[in-house]
Amino acid sequence: MRLTVYLAGQIHSPWRKEFKQLAEQRKLPVDFVGPMDNHERSDDIGEEILGPQPNAILKDEAASQINNLRTRVLMNKADVVVAVFGEKYKQWNTAMDAGIAIALNKPLILVRAKELHHALKEIANHAQVVVETPEQAIEALAYIFAAE
Amino acid sequence: MRLTVYLAGQIHSPWRKEFKQLAEQRKLPVDFVGPMDNHERSDDIGEEILGPQPNAILKDEAASQINNLRTRVLMNKADVVVAVFGEKYKQWNTAMDAGIAIALNKPLILVRAKELHHALKEIANHAQVVVETPEQAIEALAYIFAAE
Amino acid sequence: MRLTVYLAGQIHSPWRKEFKQLAEQRKLPVDFVGPMDNHERSDDIGEEILGPQPNAILKDEAASQINNLRTRVLMNKADVVVAVFGEKYKQWNTAMDAGIAIALNKPLILVRAKELHHALKEIANHAQVVVETPEQAIEALAYIFAAE
Amino acid sequence: MRLTVYLAGQIHSPWRKEFKQLAEQRKLPVDFVGPMDNHERSDDIGEEILGPQPNAILKDEAASQINNLRTRVLMNKADVVVAVFGEKYKQWNTAMDAGIAIALNKPLILVRAKELHHALKEIANHAQVVVETPEQAIEALAYIFAAE
Amino acid sequence: MRLTVYLAGQIHSPWRKEFKQLAEQRKLPVDFVGPMDNHERSDDIGEEILGPQPNAILKDEAASQINNLRTRVLMNKADVVVAVFGEKYKQWNTAMDAGIAIALNKPLILVRAKELHHALKEIANHAQVVVETPEQAIEALAYIFAAE
Amino acid sequence: MRLTVYLAGQIHSPWRKEFKQLAEQRKLPVDFVGPMDNHERSDDIGEEILGPQPNAILKDEAASQINNLRTRVLMNKADVVVAVFGEKYKQWNTAMDAGIAIALNKPLILVRAKELHHALKEIANHAQVVVETPEQAIEALAYIFAAE
Amino acid sequence: MRLTVYLAGQIHSPWRKEFKQLAEQRKLPVDFVGPMDNHERSDDIGEEILGPQPNAILKDEAASQINNLRTRVLMNKADVVVAVFGEKYKQWNTAMDAGIAIALNKPLILVRAKELHHALKEIANHAQVVVETPEQAIEALAYIFAAE
Amino acid sequence: MRLTVYLAGQIHSPWRKEFKQLAEQRKLPVDFVGPMDNHERSDDIGEEILGPQPNAILKDEAASQINNLRTRVLMNKADVVVAVFGEKYKQWNTAMDAGIAIALNKPLILVRAKELHHALKEIANHAQVVVETPEQAIEALAYIFAAE
Repeated sequence: MRLTVYLAGQIHSPWRKEFKQLAEQRKLPVDFVGPMDNHERSDDIGEEILGPQPNAILKDEAASQINNLRTRVLMNKADVVVAVFGEKYKQWNTAMDAGIAIALNKPLILVRAKELHHALKEIANHAQVVVETPEQAIEALAYIFAAE
Repeated sequence: MRLTVYLAGQIHSPWRKEFKQLAEQRKLPVDFVGPMDNHERSDDIGEEILGPQPNAILKDEAASQINNLRTRVLMNKADVVVAVFGEKYKQWNTAMDAGIAIALNKPLILVRAKELHHALKEIANHAQVVVETPEQAIEALAYIFAAE
Repeated sequence: MRLTVYLAGQIHSPWRKEFKQLAEQRKLPVDFVGPMDNHERSDDIGEEILGPQPNAILKDEAASQINNLRTRVLMNKADVVVAVFGEKYKQWNTAMDAGIAIALNKPLILVRAKELHHALKEIANHAQVVVETPEQAIEALAYIFAAE
Repeated sequence: MRLTVYLAGQIHSPWRKEFKQLAEQRKLPVDFVGPMDNHERSDDIGEEILGPQPNAILKDEAASQINNLRTRVLMNKADVVVAVFGEKYKQWNTAMDAGIAIALNKPLILVRAKELHHALKEIANHAQVVVETPEQAIEALAYIFAAE
Repeated sequence: MRLTVYLAGQIHSPWRKEFKQLAEQRKLPVDFVGPMDNHERSDDIGEEILGPQPNAILKDEAASQINNLRTRVLMNKADVVVAVFGEKYKQWNTAMDAGIAIALNKPLILVRAKELHHALKEIANHAQVVVETPEQAIEALAYIFAAE
Repeated sequence: MRLTVYLAGQIHSPWRKEFKQLAEQRKLPVDFVGPMDNHERSDDIGEEILGPQPNAILKDEAASQINNLRTRVLMNKADVVVAVFGEKYKQWNTAMDAGIAIALNKPLILVRAKELHHALKEIANHAQVVVETPEQAIEALAYIFAAE
Repeated sequence: MRLTVYLAGQIHSPWRKEFKQLAEQRKLPVDFVGPMDNHERSDDIGEEILGPQPNAILKDEAASQINNLRTRVLMNKADVVVAVFGEKYKQWNTAMDAGIAIALNKPLILVRAKELHHALKEIANHAQVVVETPEQAIEALAYIFAAE
Repeated sequence: MRLTVYLAGQIHSPWRKEFKQLAEQRKLPVDFVGPMDNHERSDDIGEEILGPQPNAILKDEAASQINNLRTRVLMNKADVVVAVFGEKYKQWNTAMDAGIAIALNKPLILVRAKELHHALKEIANHAQVVVETPEQAIEALAYIFAAE
């Protein structure tokens, strides 16, 4: 049995790479999917496919429709969703992805530092698991497969 | 035919009151529901019901479960969800509520100033309608009922 | 028991009015809903609510999001969908509405002249009832309520 | 991870073949499915299986039930639906397929020339992605798999 | 709280009338719906609405689409389905209605004489309640409302 | 807006009556439903409707099908489920009802004394709200309607 | 792409074997599933597993629960359902299986001789395809995979 | 065709090991999943991942969220659920799992000694199959695959 895990979170730092490495070290039978985390490409993908747009707003609209195509297809494939929140950035997409996971009944693992507790308390309550570090999230995923 | 409309958004200012007044002036057959927007009570509701908690985190946990009971029941009843984003506050609950609405196939009206366009571009793309002011959102609701 | 009936079809002629009159003559306990059939207002609703748009394409985008808000909310409320096709106009919205009704398991009544049979044969096959005139569609609706 | 992509559109020209070639050149892990696009066979399949029918209408009914069997089974298997509209033909099946995809929550990519914008504005608004050429649609599919 | 109860079964004898009278005597807050049980009209409804058909098979097809429109709309409204089987007639529609109720998760009450036990054992196993007389079915419905 | 609340729990003591009185004192717009809590009648309902059964096991089977008819219809109508656990009795039906509520996405309020925490920790984790007394559950329901 | 096809119908004659042979001759990528068609074993399976039962009715109940376990699991796996009706036997299970397929939105192929048209007209209307022989049903399945 | 079978039940004795051995002896193409049945680890998993907790209740909360992550993911994957009840322990999780299986329409096999009949009569009525020993449950699973 393999599981597909969707990694929701900001796309400004390479945290997904570290996350995947931790899983590989544990040899977990898990496939990770998620939004494009090459931030520049994510912002430019609309013009990359549709050509130059008249202004910044239309450039954003062009990009968001392609980004949502990707995330919606991949979210549909996921067995578990991990949402990682940090101190920086608005992270509204992360919160939207968490909401989609909740409504689709996909188990949600929330990763956040303790300092963010208050602002995330309702998402935490809807999450299946709340942890503070990627290592702990990986431990929780490993436990799904543990024989004893 | 009456519609139930869920108002997602921050609970620090009395914008819901103004929103409802606009609908009343138009005599729209609409019932508004949403989170508790007495912010202090929303934060204290856990201890109000369950008694004093040992620390701030447990106070938050107690509150969030009661707040989520309210919003989940009311979201289930909604025909349309309106999500209002502003410059201030983290507004992660607003984004989570938008995500829930999207996944439940409830039409979503996003209200946000133009300046917030970039950060909200993926939510905007998933929303059914994107406007800039409460008045415009009310116009959109009114159009559902318009005979001609 | 009252039923809500969604009337899908072009918005260039006042056929919905006649349809409703036939139902009233039969005193059917039916509430009709559907797209805005004041064609001009339907095309202009985006600018009416959001203000002047830079070009025709953006005017259309502004309008379509408001029109879809209306039809999606009303389709959700419908117990039966009636789709009327004629010789004129592209009527792609009518066919899309028929597809939505089919996938949502809402019984579909297709009204079309015999001449259109070939082009509509797959939609006809998915429809629950296929008739040639509005009067016949009304008869079919009346039969749902008939005591004997 | 492989994806199944349903290609909705007219069956009078061999556009699906070109579409598949583009995907093969990109080595996308995609399986394409869709309606029978040998138009003559699609029209004759009812009599091919059930024998000669008394008239043209019954020949059509016989064919449409077999065509819908095929498309319904294949649509159920699809992760993404691509709908291609052109200048010619009524294309009501394409619009119905788009409606089914929308209601089943399957991400929809709409391909259409700019000239068709007005007539397709509501379908475009419901689509996840709107592009003008098959190449762009292939780019959008490729982006789902892109690692960076 | 009122409940809507769908009465599935043959349409050759006036058993539904007796069934409703039993409920009225008990003053149950129940609305009964079901297929047209004026058998002649049920067979003729296709030609009544669509005009004379070329042969008996097409007359049947015309009738069945209208009958299914009625039963599908009414089944959708039902909270409980009662299926009554007797010694006479094929009653394949009754068994199909039972199957639809099972798959839609609508609680099913099966009414049948003991002699029919073997032929109905799989339907009985899927039913929520199995009784032998209409009076017993009414008792079971009454128990839903009983205060003590 | 009224809500329907299903009261799951043992049927050996009159706790539901007290629960309803608390809600009436608060004038909550709530309709309570639940299993038959006249325990003797609940055990005898099979024989009451179907007549004497050959042995105790068949008497139980006869009763359970009627009890499940009642609870399944009423659970379907519920907006919120309250599950009350106490020290006495096996209460497997209460736990099954909680599981059904969880899987149907109906918000669940768990009421249990602190001593029962360990045995109920997984149900508690799935519940939306966990409280210790009926009064607290009523407070939580009241908060759904609170204007401020 | 392989498809799973559920073969509903009586279990007194070896028609499923012939059906499978036809598919093998065509080399269709299809896996057939269905009820146990060793009739004697199907009737005895309850006692085979649970031991001797006190009477014929309880023997039937014991058997039907095991038969329904099998068919329910296999129906869940099916992409297409084929229902075959003949002149002999009550075939209520076949009609129930057809109803379940209809309500689960699984495409249904009905196989029946023309003489049975009237009694099956409502099931025929709900079926996706209606044919008269197993060979025709196989042709319809083959058409799903046909490249041109 | 392989099936995934979820084994619900207490985690104090090694009954799952025996259950799997019986299936292996029969060479059934079945993959078993279920809760962690190393009881000590199940109780400690919260602290193992999240570190020491301030008190027993919080230790339990930490553990239950991880246990529910595991069981929820695995239940989603299951084709059949087996629930085993014994004389000892509260077994509320077993009953909750049975309820989840019922509401998700996953066929449920209940294994319990005859003495437990009365307390389990409503769960038994909702189960697809009721047996008394693991051997019988394995026989029922084997029958799903039996060719004749």
